[in-house]
Amino acid sequence: MKKIFLSENDMPKSWYNIAADLKTAALPPLNPGTLQPLGPDDLAPLFPMALIEQEVSMEREIPIPDPVQEGLKMWRPSPLIRATGLEAALKTPAKIYFKYEGVSPAGSHKPNTAIPQAYYNKLEGVKRLSTETGAGQWGSSLALAGQMFGLEVKVYMVKVSFTQKPYRRSMMQSWGAEIVPSPSSDTSFGRAILEKDPDNTGSLGIAISEAVEDAAQRDDTKYALGSVLNHVLLHQTVIGLEAKKQMEIAGDTPDIVIGCVGGGSNFAGLAFPYLRDKINGADIDFRAIEPTACPTLTRGKFAYDFGDMAQMTPLVSMYTLGHSFMPPGIHAGGLRYHGMAPMLSHVVREGLVDAYSYHQVEVFDAAALFARTEGIIPAPESAHAIKGAIDAAVEAREAGQEKTILFNLSGHGHFDMSAYDAYFAGKLSDYRPSDEDLAEGIAVTEGLPPV
Amino acid sequence: MKKIFLSENDMPKSWYNIAADLKTAALPPLNPGTLQPLGPDDLAPLFPMALIEQEVSMEREIPIPDPVQEGLKMWRPSPLIRATGLEAALKTPAKIYFKYEGVSPAGSHKPNTAIPQAYYNKLEGVKRLSTETGAGQWGSSLALAGQMFGLEVKVYMVKVSFTQKPYRRSMMQSWGAEIVPSPSSDTSFGRAILEKDPDNTGSLGIAISEAVEDAAQRDDTKYALGSVLNHVLLHQTVIGLEAKKQMEIAGDTPDIVIGCVGGGSNFAGLAFPYLRDKINGADIDFRAIEPTACPTLTRGKFAYDFGDMAQMTPLVSMYTLGHSFMPPGIHAGGLRYHGMAPMLSHVVREGLVDAYSYHQVEVFDAAALFARTEGIIPAPESAHAIKGAIDAAVEAREAGQEKTILFNLSGHGHFDMSAYDAYFAGKLSDYRPSDEDLAEGIAVTEGLPPV
Repeated sequence: MKKIFLSENDMPKSWYNIAADLKTAALPPLNPGTLQPLGPDDLAPLFPMALIEQEVSMEREIPIPDPVQEGLKMWRPSPLIRATGLEAALKTPAKIYFKYEGVSPAGSHKPNTAIPQAYYNKLEGVKRLSTETGAGQWGSSLALAGQMFGLEVKVYMVKVSFTQKPYRRSMMQSWGAEIVPSPSSDTSFGRAILEKDPDNTGSLGIAISEAVEDAAQRDDTKYALGSVLNHVLLHQTVIGLEAKKQMEIAGDTPDIVIGCVGGGSNFAGLAFPYLRDKINGADIDFRAIEPTACPTLTRGKFAYDFGDMAQMTPLVSMYTLGHSFMPPGIHAGGLRYHGMAPMLSHVVREGLVDAYSYHQVEVFDAAALFARTEGIIPAPESAHAIKGAIDAAVEAREAGQEKTILFNLSGHGHFDMSAYDAYFAGKLSDYRPSDEDLAEGIAVTEGLPPV
Repeated sequence: MKKIFLSENDMPKSWYNIAADLKTAALPPLNPGTLQPLGPDDLAPLFPMALIEQEVSMEREIPIPDPVQEGLKMWRPSPLIRATGLEAALKTPAKIYFKYEGVSPAGSHKPNTAIPQAYYNKLEGVKRLSTETGAGQWGSSLALAGQMFGLEVKVYMVKVSFTQKPYRRSMMQSWGAEIVPSPSSDTSFGRAILEKDPDNTGSLGIAISEAVEDAAQRDDTKYALGSVLNHVLLHQTVIGLEAKKQMEIAGDTPDIVIGCVGGGSNFAGLAFPYLRDKINGADIDFRAIEPTACPTLTRGKFAYDFGDMAQMTPLVSMYTLGHSFMPPGIHAGGLRYHGMAPMLSHVVREGLVDAYSYHQVEVFDAAALFARTEGIIPAPESAHAIKGAIDAAVEAREAGQEKTILFNLSGHGHFDMSAYDAYFAGKLSDYRPSDEDLAEGIAVTEGLPPV
């Protein structure tokens, strides 16, 4: 393991907006009522104007406000690390580098966008943010950011996680957020569900609906989302911008750039600044890694679809398994999402990024090897990127090529040790949805506008 | 929060041995059979000769072998951080700096000594290490270090922790260690206890006895201890040596140096390089912070005593509550030890270091304030140092003095969230042993050689 640090002065001063460099634009989001392209007014009840502007901006560089830079300095710049231990174990001529986002207070890349989101809301007089969280990574990050700028934060946490992951809950509480299990009696949507089914254990779809309703109902409150949207991917580009400077210090350029994908933001954060080089002619291989259990890019359909199960969001063009698809209960909870960020879906569709999928057990095999050789216990989500990097390094060995591989280690696994318990006990299962199941899920997009 | 990083090239090349600078020497350890000062042969069954030599060395600087430096580079140099958020919350004119050891793979300062211990054992042909662990910090660290140098590691984990802290167990398993709940059927001492009391939940005293027996019985195995001994404190001085360089970059020198104390190694690691300056005339205030529940320095007796309950260790001169003292079940498990490192006890006795104690709830109040202002959730042990720093900063405010405070944040609290749950639920209790309880514990030292 060899670390390359940047000084705080070397932190990026602007985010990189890939929209400025794409040869073809992504399809616009649609108002589900009128089926017309979304205008700022459609989003204003939920988001501050600064974020709505970022969502549609065509500027290549968008300055990072000073208070946001100060906030990010709590842990940024994050280290770039050469995985010499893993390289030796694989006997590969490839060089393997990774950007390590687990050094943030919440333990993942999520605060990279939570902090600017909280900042812009504060600037426009918002007093309170509502959001949903599944496993708790995003809720923790927004709690931290809210604390930083003096905003109240209300987190609707999927009830099954609320019960099973008390530690993520205590982390959010440490950062002053109010947390309720979703479905909750705090929203009419939640109450309606509880009335029919008091034992409902919740889903991300329900929690999103509750958080959106909360924000729409209260003048002092806006909604915050932790992935998928253009402005979220934009904020994550600090990862790739730092990595480029660090790779330059290392004297290397990546041949292969790898990240795991759920909603798409950590992958985009590392990849988009390099994707600009590819658009301009560089020969770089981009690999987005998803779980076989939730194969949005590898087996989904590019279509207009809703972002949530309750059909409350705008229609967005993306690879999707259908908004009613229920992914199997794999431990990489952050990758269990039916859709994929429209901007990432677009570059996959354009052939700039390739998608791969792996089974749960082989991903944990990779995680265990990484923990033993590099000393870091990765989050199950991030372990998908490790598996991708290992396979790329083995390919390089078999081809006798000195490839340079760069992947994003988006978070540590300190709050996922029960998954490791299950793995070491041999209790993990692999899941592969049948063609019939996928077809049934994707069928819900058929009545929606064509792409 | 403002971070000061060092480059890997600035890592210390030698450890600092305070024995070279003390005006009076600490009392020697005694063989409990002969009551004569211990010779190398007494320790040879348990430790490799290189560590025995370090234990008694009078050299000021002891070179850190290259492979150990390489191992430490997995996460070192650790950051020095100015706690500007905490300063603002306290409205203090004091500057508060902390050295953050939670960035290590195991999440605390413990790998600083696990790595050299594994290295020297490997060098002398040892194949296997045995050790005990309570909450699991030390066991995790030795597992990591064993993995690094290709040594098998057997961890005797106090049974109640084995059951209650499965995540630390999975961490050790990720790093390839063998873990058994102690008392175990793997040693004759463990079997004897289980025969009398099959439901015995274990104690650190029992686990130490099992690990020592394991090492004494097998030619291929030595024993490793995570605190208390001179060579352990020596290895931890990388903390203070780095901090001195970083404080120089910050343009400050500490007026007050603070750390929590259980066995004493994280405090000594930060403090000893600065204590040298005090011995040479500098005006620095040293504060060792312990729990009121286990008040070794503040209410214990300086005496010869055993390091373990089963009286298997040499007799060492130290502040002690008596080797039979059972500390109350506070959440700062790493501070629940009846004794204190002889070298630290010595400098406390010499008046170079002052001791303070705090109650559990006020320590968690400090931890929660720190989490909210600095974004890091501290280990309950380390939170004692935070409480000490907060009190020093408040003193400075009340006196209108611009003091510079430096403390050691020895670890993060990601594996202690159940303690935070209890705190937020208002379920934590304070404990203060009665004078009678303490006198009873200390009475066991009365038949031992006087100091």
